[in-house]
Amino acid sequence: MTEKKEVVKLLGFWASPFTTRVEMALKIKGVPYEYLEEDLPNKTPLLLELNPIHKKVPVLVHNDKIILESRVILEYIDQTWKRNPILPQDPYKKATARFLAKFVDEQFLTVGFISLVKAENGREVAMEETRELIMFLEKEVTGKDFFGGEMVGFLDIVAGSMTFCLVPGWEGMGIDMIPEEKFPELNRWIKNLKTVEAVRGCIRPTDKQIEHMNKFAEKIKSA
Amino acid sequence: MTEKKEVVKLLGFWASPFTTRVEMALKIKGVPYEYLEEDLPNKTPLLLELNPIHKKVPVLVHNDKIILESRVILEYIDQTWKRNPILPQDPYKKATARFLAKFVDEQFLTVGFISLVKAENGREVAMEETRELIMFLEKEVTGKDFFGGEMVGFLDIVAGSMTFCLVPGWEGMGIDMIPEEKFPELNRWIKNLKTVEAVRGCIRPTDKQIEHMNKFAEKIKSA
Repeated sequence: MTEKKEVVKLLGFWASPFTTRVEMALKIKGVPYEYLEEDLPNKTPLLLELNPIHKKVPVLVHNDKIILESRVILEYIDQTWKRNPILPQDPYKKATARFLAKFVDEQFLTVGFISLVKAENGREVAMEETRELIMFLEKEVTGKDFFGGEMVGFLDIVAGSMTFCLVPGWEGMGIDMIPEEKFPELNRWIKNLKTVEAVRGCIRPTDKQIEHMNKFAEKIKSA
Repeated sequence: MTEKKEVVKLLGFWASPFTTRVEMALKIKGVPYEYLEEDLPNKTPLLLELNPIHKKVPVLVHNDKIILESRVILEYIDQTWKRNPILPQDPYKKATARFLAKFVDEQFLTVGFISLVKAENGREVAMEETRELIMFLEKEVTGKDFFGGEMVGFLDIVAGSMTFCLVPGWEGMGIDMIPEEKFPELNRWIKNLKTVEAVRGCIRPTDKQIEHMNKFAEKIKSA
């Protein structure tokens, strides 16, 4: 096997859900990698060289190849290291996972956090909108261990990384956004996720993540 | 073959690049489909039922399955009807095509049109920014018939549908955004695209597309 000689590097930022999801996927696949932390206000020349278009993390380096954009990276990882598949084989199930992952990425951070921070006086409306989004996921995971079925899959990784970032963000605002009585299935899903070692290993300490999200909220407010 | 009994319906809007790209893919694959035009200000109950999350076109109906989001639909089409492949097999080439397609969709309409319309007085800066984006594509297609190589592929369909929407938009503003002397490779690529029947069949009459983009610009200005 040549795999042992492979170079796999991940440029990331510890509190970013887009970074942690790539780490989850690499751990699920059992791919050893070198992690390079980026100090985001002072981006390294390496990051600017590898991602000249967006200048963003995560960046995956695989031998001489540079792969960008977290969901694209997850698909690359899944196709390159085939053990423990992340995406379903069935075209329709795959389309559904991709659609909902895109939905999570495009909606949750903006509606679920940025709108909430900006809506200081009318927080109730933003909370209601966020819970409407969350309800789509509640329905999708009903009766299943994971979105991917019995195993953690693409949507679990995408929605999970976002959840482990946003829940502390909401906690910092004093909000229980996903109450057990309204979202029993998602609460069960979060517990299931935490039993998976590859996922658990990527969850940051709650106090640190809360501190980060509080700082992020301050930045949004003053922007 | 059961394929002849298949139901394939596309809900779309004639001037939308997200719709025309799905039509291109279906034509490339030779999949017969029924096209249902949506009158966007007066969305049909069918559209609202099929896409309750975004209430947007395009929507692909394949037998009892509903597939949403244009790039997700393209991937579904490619995996379901395997003839005339759209996406490359190689994981890295696939990742590059997906990354650049996402880049086109997230950047070109906003920077290349909406910013330009809004920047009535400082149009030069917005034009410069747009041409910086376009230059990434110029480099990528250099020396190739298509982004996909010798055949029209995923990025050709995504970038092509966007091009055939934006060029008339720019024309309506009196702008030649992709001049031959600055972007010879992309101009060659556009000519190549027009030789492909499946693509040519999805290009709308220039005067109608200009008229639509002018109306769209008015809407942006008054928003």
